[in-house]
Amino acid sequence: MSTAADHLSAPAPLLGQAAALDSADSLGHVRDRFDLPDDGSVYLVGNSLGALPRAVAPAVADAVQRQWGRSRVGGWNTSGWWAAPQRVGDRIGELLGAAPGQVVAGDCTSVQLHKVHLAAAAETRRRSADGADGARRVVVADPASFPTDLYVLASDARLAGWEVVLASPPDVPAVLAARGGEVALVTLSQVDYRTGELWDLPGLTRAAHDVGALVLWDLCHSAGVVPADLDANDVDYAVGCSYKFLNGGPGAPAWIYVPHRLQAAFANPIPGWNSAAQPFAMTAEYTPATDIAVARTGTPQMISMLALEAALTAYDDVEVQAVRAKSLSLTGFALEALDALVPEVEVVTPREPERRGSALALRHPQSWGLVRALHARGVEGDFRAPDVMRWGIAPLYLSHADVLAAVVALRAVLDGGEHEAAELSERPTVT
Amino acid sequence: MSTAADHLSAPAPLLGQAAALDSADSLGHVRDRFDLPDDGSVYLVGNSLGALPRAVAPAVADAVQRQWGRSRVGGWNTSGWWAAPQRVGDRIGELLGAAPGQVVAGDCTSVQLHKVHLAAAAETRRRSADGADGARRVVVADPASFPTDLYVLASDARLAGWEVVLASPPDVPAVLAARGGEVALVTLSQVDYRTGELWDLPGLTRAAHDVGALVLWDLCHSAGVVPADLDANDVDYAVGCSYKFLNGGPGAPAWIYVPHRLQAAFANPIPGWNSAAQPFAMTAEYTPATDIAVARTGTPQMISMLALEAALTAYDDVEVQAVRAKSLSLTGFALEALDALVPEVEVVTPREPERRGSALALRHPQSWGLVRALHARGVEGDFRAPDVMRWGIAPLYLSHADVLAAVVALRAVLDGGEHEAAELSERPTVT
Repeated sequence: MSTAADHLSAPAPLLGQAAALDSADSLGHVRDRFDLPDDGSVYLVGNSLGALPRAVAPAVADAVQRQWGRSRVGGWNTSGWWAAPQRVGDRIGELLGAAPGQVVAGDCTSVQLHKVHLAAAAETRRRSADGADGARRVVVADPASFPTDLYVLASDARLAGWEVVLASPPDVPAVLAARGGEVALVTLSQVDYRTGELWDLPGLTRAAHDVGALVLWDLCHSAGVVPADLDANDVDYAVGCSYKFLNGGPGAPAWIYVPHRLQAAFANPIPGWNSAAQPFAMTAEYTPATDIAVARTGTPQMISMLALEAALTAYDDVEVQAVRAKSLSLTGFALEALDALVPEVEVVTPREPERRGSALALRHPQSWGLVRALHARGVEGDFRAPDVMRWGIAPLYLSHADVLAAVVALRAVLDGGEHEAAELSERPTVT
Repeated sequence: MSTAADHLSAPAPLLGQAAALDSADSLGHVRDRFDLPDDGSVYLVGNSLGALPRAVAPAVADAVQRQWGRSRVGGWNTSGWWAAPQRVGDRIGELLGAAPGQVVAGDCTSVQLHKVHLAAAAETRRRSADGADGARRVVVADPASFPTDLYVLASDARLAGWEVVLASPPDVPAVLAARGGEVALVTLSQVDYRTGELWDLPGLTRAAHDVGALVLWDLCHSAGVVPADLDANDVDYAVGCSYKFLNGGPGAPAWIYVPHRLQAAFANPIPGWNSAAQPFAMTAEYTPATDIAVARTGTPQMISMLALEAALTAYDDVEVQAVRAKSLSLTGFALEALDALVPEVEVVTPREPERRGSALALRHPQSWGLVRALHARGVEGDFRAPDVMRWGIAPLYLSHADVLAAVVALRAVLDGGEHEAAELSERPTVT
């Protein structure tokens, strides 16, 4: 594999700018917490699967060989397995602006969405029990949501008797103005997974609350790189995965946020034994936990859970605000370099910092070819049909020099027409 | 730690019998596939968390360091991650008598139960669409089920409009005779987790089908040690975990069986993107898969999944029928030894081979003390309140000599009154 910038050097001013930004980077040392190939490659798919933190391999080896192999079933006590979902949840909560005891890790995002949808329907019925039951039967969702959000919502809407109204986040306030009294739930993603656009979580949460609706935020594409300030923003529910910017590993456990004020009434629609007040009493009658454990389900997949816990040590002594600042510096610098070196590639992601998440969407008619040709040069991005190349910008392990190398490689690919042939290469069934 | 039989030897005839049975054991070599402590201890909690197969540690290290660390997001293709749930499901299916393409691994048992309950309700509605809709509104379940089964069922019954009728398996035929035309689903466990009793899966399945009801079997406590012959018995749905006799590791992924004939209509109530016909088309409209993928949900926890896959290699070239035969030999020999050496301990598990699973339940007023005192002698069992000690008999790594050592240790504990003091020791909150 050739390295990213083999055939072209960056202009001196951009090189100097990258060097200056990197030397002033207060998070530069965090890169060493990751096990990155030493081959000059630039990994820009951390928005899909984060790179491997060095702490994971020894932690997983210990979990398998000592904890499972020697403590065996005793590990549920002696190795702290039983408490792990809440311990890991609290650690993720720190990055989300959630005080301890309000986040629990486990299951997958789809299952967590399902729990929240039906719990929100029950909460809505509970609140309207004084008034006209069934008055709120509308749920507002973004049509550009990640597919699983829409699939699970459509199914749950049938169960809950909800009407799904699709509205892009900028149009949500108008929907709320028109139908606010009917709205049970507003469910949105903080960052659009295709365009990288960041939505106004505080403002949209307030708008929903102003009409008496509940709010669910999907933070899959923003957790760990964009502050959510869940407590401060009075968010009702949030869910997310942990395998993107949180670097928890392939399919790492998802998580769910239920604030203290909503826990006692949280009607978990999959009330597995882990969600019971006294799971080990083994009673036939279900009594729900009154803390965040109420959002647990069954026995958690512990090897993946402990891999995630180790991965989160990459965030030790790192504030998410600092990560956000570096993310904006990296994406801002990328935009400058793209404008200067590859003006023919359209940047889909908004240019205003307050509207950018931590990924860039670049449009080109031969984006698939660009992704493949860049791969051959050691720059990993991904493709979203029909014509978008996505670059995830993971601030914990990327430098401004990395970003510049990617842009330079893109220039070289276009100059050499390398994407023309690559465009014809087979498209994977799984990306 | 003292070893199991420090202070007492077994009578010569039993020692000779154990030696003869072990030397004739066609599965004796399988023990070497497990990483067992070399300290003379006897692990009898494989019915809760199976011992560590040797293949797991290197497989997990490879999954983390090479697949994730180097292939990164490409692992979904190049390392076969995407296909893993169905690949692992097929391997488990071999042990269940299920032809390929009918079992998929993932989620936890509680989530899988939830899927089947609501899918069965939809299937019942579908079948009754010709006749009087809503005629079948009864679900029959065992009151002695593992708690999660009852908790999730009670919740789903509210969603489905079902009445739950509790009946012990021997009483199920009478319930079916009385109310058969009303019964939508019969849901039972093949083995009672407390008593170790094995129920008649073929007969109860036929009885349910005879009145037009669907059947769901929970095989958590029998998968891998008792044949289920799911295809041959025309079972409608089955679920189970994989961390007990399948040795998949703490919280290892659960699995779900949906036979080919029920897949096209399977109404997955958590239709995450992994269950879509074309997950990577990223369409807003959901089109379900028409194969077993329809029972998938979200992104699978891959490190735990690959640990399970490696663990299942302990079953390479091992037929579940041979495991069953060894299990009966071990439990039968244990009963003989218990009768001979500790007649004052009551055996709760039925003595007839066709009514025994692969665990023994022993009753004693100071069972907690017995469990602790045996632990001090290197014999690991577990306790179920108020007075039962359970011994899981895992045929892949236990010998008749192990079983005899456990019984001899139990005799020594009772003779020395070691359980009297141990009875006062603190009880764990998690077992």
